[in-house]
Amino acid sequence: MVYSKQLIFRTEGYCHILKITEVITDFLQSSSIRNGLVTIFSRGSTCGITIVEYEEGVLKDLQNALEKIAPVNSFYEHDRLQGDGNGFSHVRSALMKPTLSVPVIDGELALGTWQEIVFIDFDNRNRDREVIVQIVGE
Amino acid sequence: MVYSKQLIFRTEGYCHILKITEVITDFLQSSSIRNGLVTIFSRGSTCGITIVEYEEGVLKDLQNALEKIAPVNSFYEHDRLQGDGNGFSHVRSALMKPTLSVPVIDGELALGTWQEIVFIDFDNRNRDREVIVQIVGE
Amino acid sequence: MVYSKQLIFRTEGYCHILKITEVITDFLQSSSIRNGLVTIFSRGSTCGITIVEYEEGVLKDLQNALEKIAPVNSFYEHDRLQGDGNGFSHVRSALMKPTLSVPVIDGELALGTWQEIVFIDFDNRNRDREVIVQIVGE
Repeated sequence: MVYSKQLIFRTEGYCHILKITEVITDFLQSSSIRNGLVTIFSRGSTCGITIVEYEEGVLKDLQNALEKIAPVNSFYEHDRLQGDGNGFSHVRSALMKPTLSVPVIDGELALGTWQEIVFIDFDNRNRDREVIVQIVGE
Repeated sequence: MVYSKQLIFRTEGYCHILKITEVITDFLQSSSIRNGLVTIFSRGSTCGITIVEYEEGVLKDLQNALEKIAPVNSFYEHDRLQGDGNGFSHVRSALMKPTLSVPVIDGELALGTWQEIVFIDFDNRNRDREVIVQIVGE
Repeated sequence: MVYSKQLIFRTEGYCHILKITEVITDFLQSSSIRNGLVTIFSRGSTCGITIVEYEEGVLKDLQNALEKIAPVNSFYEHDRLQGDGNGFSHVRSALMKPTLSVPVIDGELALGTWQEIVFIDFDNRNRDREVIVQIVGE
């Protein structure tokens, strides 16, 4: 069986990190799937999905690490050619990827105690973001 | 139901980025699957699969970022021990991973407007590359 | 059909890299699944799962690259706020992600000759680590 749902999140850009575990859990519980795989997929090319301990310090550290990997104020060919000013966003998204899969066991996400699923908006402005949650299982 | 297909791509190495969305879409449409999960998996240890806006500037920016993370001309233990000269390729591949999953909804990949699936060859020479596309669904 | 198994690994921290391909293959062969998708998921927020050529030099190069991305001896907000001393571990885990999916074809993992599935422990101490292996297929 396969169940899919579209979610919309309002984000603020510049590495805004949103905890989305609860809304995924809600969808899982509304389905009849007890065992299978949940995939969380962002439909934007300037986003990432990952898992992190949702603690203020860790979030800041992750943002700092991404700023080191692809700084906001650096030269990007994308900005020169397209003028969008979000070259850093595309690089961060390609490196982190907009997709993540988590097993479901006995009707629950197989997350550890401190693991939270997060959506990261790498863009340089406020946006409405579309995320697909899909469950394949039985 | 599960469908798998082997694809072969000719690549040029040194962060050559190939758009492979169309060939995956073709395979999906030839299957009878309407809803499920597509996984794209490269069978080489010097490759990566990701999603990116396929725009000349972004591709160059991504290549520059990877060159910063694991420079071609740096010291690698792999090169010292094995003499392959592609230590940078293995590091980039382990960090980016050779696998990616995308939901299928109503017979279509759930990609956003600007999202393209790409194969990145991190190696230091021309090669034929094997990629498995697999669809699990109904 | 969906099969899941819990695995426990003893790890040493500080980017300890464990090859876990064999134990996943063993579980796959004990199931009746011939075609489908295996997901390997670590239930800790200071771990990563990836694929790498398991060669002494490559492993060292990967450890060096991660040390450059999120150095052990750097300032982390997580350490300031929580005092755990493992801020670098959380950053590395969020960037690398604790999940990986590999296709199964004709009862075998679709890995290339040199590809090995590895668990990486980013933490700063010895631990018992829990990994979920799940197979969805037919």
